[in-house]
Amino acid sequence: MANKLSSPRIGIFGATGAVGKIVCQLLESRELPYHSIRFFGSPENSLSRKREIRFCGQLYPVEPLIEERVHDLDLVVASTPDEVARESAPWVVRQGGIFIDESAAHRMYADVPLVIPEVNSDAVFNHKGIIASPNCSTTQMVICLKPLHDAFGLKRVVVSTYQAASGAGQAALDELLTGTRAAVNGETHLNKCFESPLPLNLWPKIGGMRDEGYTSEELKMVGETRKIMDLPDLPVCPTCVRVPVANCHSESIVVETERPADIGRAREVLAAFPGIVVMDEPGQARLPTPLNCSGRDEVFVGRLRRDISVANGVAFWCVSDNLRKGAATNAVQIAECLVRQATR
Amino acid sequence: MANKLSSPRIGIFGATGAVGKIVCQLLESRELPYHSIRFFGSPENSLSRKREIRFCGQLYPVEPLIEERVHDLDLVVASTPDEVARESAPWVVRQGGIFIDESAAHRMYADVPLVIPEVNSDAVFNHKGIIASPNCSTTQMVICLKPLHDAFGLKRVVVSTYQAASGAGQAALDELLTGTRAAVNGETHLNKCFESPLPLNLWPKIGGMRDEGYTSEELKMVGETRKIMDLPDLPVCPTCVRVPVANCHSESIVVETERPADIGRAREVLAAFPGIVVMDEPGQARLPTPLNCSGRDEVFVGRLRRDISVANGVAFWCVSDNLRKGAATNAVQIAECLVRQATR
Repeated sequence: MANKLSSPRIGIFGATGAVGKIVCQLLESRELPYHSIRFFGSPENSLSRKREIRFCGQLYPVEPLIEERVHDLDLVVASTPDEVARESAPWVVRQGGIFIDESAAHRMYADVPLVIPEVNSDAVFNHKGIIASPNCSTTQMVICLKPLHDAFGLKRVVVSTYQAASGAGQAALDELLTGTRAAVNGETHLNKCFESPLPLNLWPKIGGMRDEGYTSEELKMVGETRKIMDLPDLPVCPTCVRVPVANCHSESIVVETERPADIGRAREVLAAFPGIVVMDEPGQARLPTPLNCSGRDEVFVGRLRRDISVANGVAFWCVSDNLRKGAATNAVQIAECLVRQATR
Repeated sequence: MANKLSSPRIGIFGATGAVGKIVCQLLESRELPYHSIRFFGSPENSLSRKREIRFCGQLYPVEPLIEERVHDLDLVVASTPDEVARESAPWVVRQGGIFIDESAAHRMYADVPLVIPEVNSDAVFNHKGIIASPNCSTTQMVICLKPLHDAFGLKRVVVSTYQAASGAGQAALDELLTGTRAAVNGETHLNKCFESPLPLNLWPKIGGMRDEGYTSEELKMVGETRKIMDLPDLPVCPTCVRVPVANCHSESIVVETERPADIGRAREVLAAFPGIVVMDEPGQARLPTPLNCSGRDEVFVGRLRRDISVANGVAFWCVSDNLRKGAATNAVQIAECLVRQATR
């Protein structure tokens, strides 16, 4: 296995989707060695018409994601819907391959590590074939919580999100842009991807309703955070809201800490943490926004300040590209961990 | 005074602005008796060109807001910038009139009552000529906090806002709409009213920077809430964010309470409170949004649920028209309190 992974035969599932495309870009630009690479898309699209992907200057076919085609793969990065991941992961694992899953299908299984490499890279190696990458809203929050926890101890987290349309997929993003064009021209527009019109509006519900009036997206932020940080009782109160922004999720996070949280020290530990960029000059109008963080792989932090409502706590604003660190970048980083370990 | 106020000579300051126009509409549609009414606008505009306002079917001149014109007014509703309120309030008060101020100029003075009629109407009568109406973000939050405090006792409040462009004035609203049109057509657009481009973006800073990294808008939400509720030590942690929405502010509010907060009971006390509409059927995609609350005078509450991160607490989403209950409606309600008392 170690040998195979040092120069793996890679499969990219969902290669033509919004996140899959970024996975391909990242593999082109980063230094991940591989033996061979194949690209898979939904069978309907791939069978009906010949599709190709240009990768490192070469043309590759987009193969249909069906069981008979999935063979001889050591490492799969899957950017697919939950149900596709659920069906196709066993095809890979049964043959001894590793399935890195960006969907929610396997995240909460006890024997599936849920990994943010900057936070719990050791967990990567404790897998049984499937490794899960967290929900986009969770990832950017946990990257910030980890150094704060190490420095001050987390006691309670309250988070309100400002989530972009791209998190709901390409069709949802198109609906936002088309609908916004109609709205500013005084024309009517219909919502299909979103339950309520999003252009120049907000929708305070992401996912289906679950226990105690929380949505599935909100409960992911609770459960996944606890699992990744290995803090099974961490109190988290999330509110997830869709905003009329194309790309990048933003979060207003308020953290109560066990020990006094000096703001200078908080700034230091956040800035020193891999994957975080502190962009916090409000006086110079320099703060993280969806527009200025789009296309970046890091998590951006601003408005860092003492929580004036508790003895020990901090409040801050955090923005990250939900398609990149929230999905593609994190999955590729997991792949890099595996390959790096195999080449040691 | 009581006699005068039972049928007052009314002055509307800032009558041609976005909020002033709504004050005029409200006075037309509601049953406030008055002896006479006059309308004032900025001297530059009013002196340079003759302007008129149609009110209850009659044409009235827009008079320039200068000291020599301000006479014989028993009751003024002022929708002006802070500096105009600061200058013109004494002109009214010196002559025995009452100045209802929607600006922030006088709100935090000890001898100026800060009033939301549903919350602290008694305070109205304890004035020395000036009565202040709170900040828009404060008003909609405090309306919700009051019944929760009466039922369960407030311990701590964490709030993240989603504030509309109209809160920054007509020019800011125009900038959002013009800029959005440009953005969806792939054209460039410049931001002048906002420090950062708002179309399809967010800006996590409203007002100037103040103590400990909080903005002026955020500290208004702390100080004004404490004053209105007469809870001078109430812990409040606010984060104020501008969103690309035309009108209506939204807020994600998490409240820790002294006593157990049963959600059924919380729903009851909120629904029974004057000025609140509970719109909370997430399963039917019926929740408060800026689009469906615009033009309404009430505060809308949805996503009401237990705060799963503390022993006693609730979380909810609240939307209100910042130009109406957040400004015009509240000021007119203060005027109504005064007139009603005088006619008793």
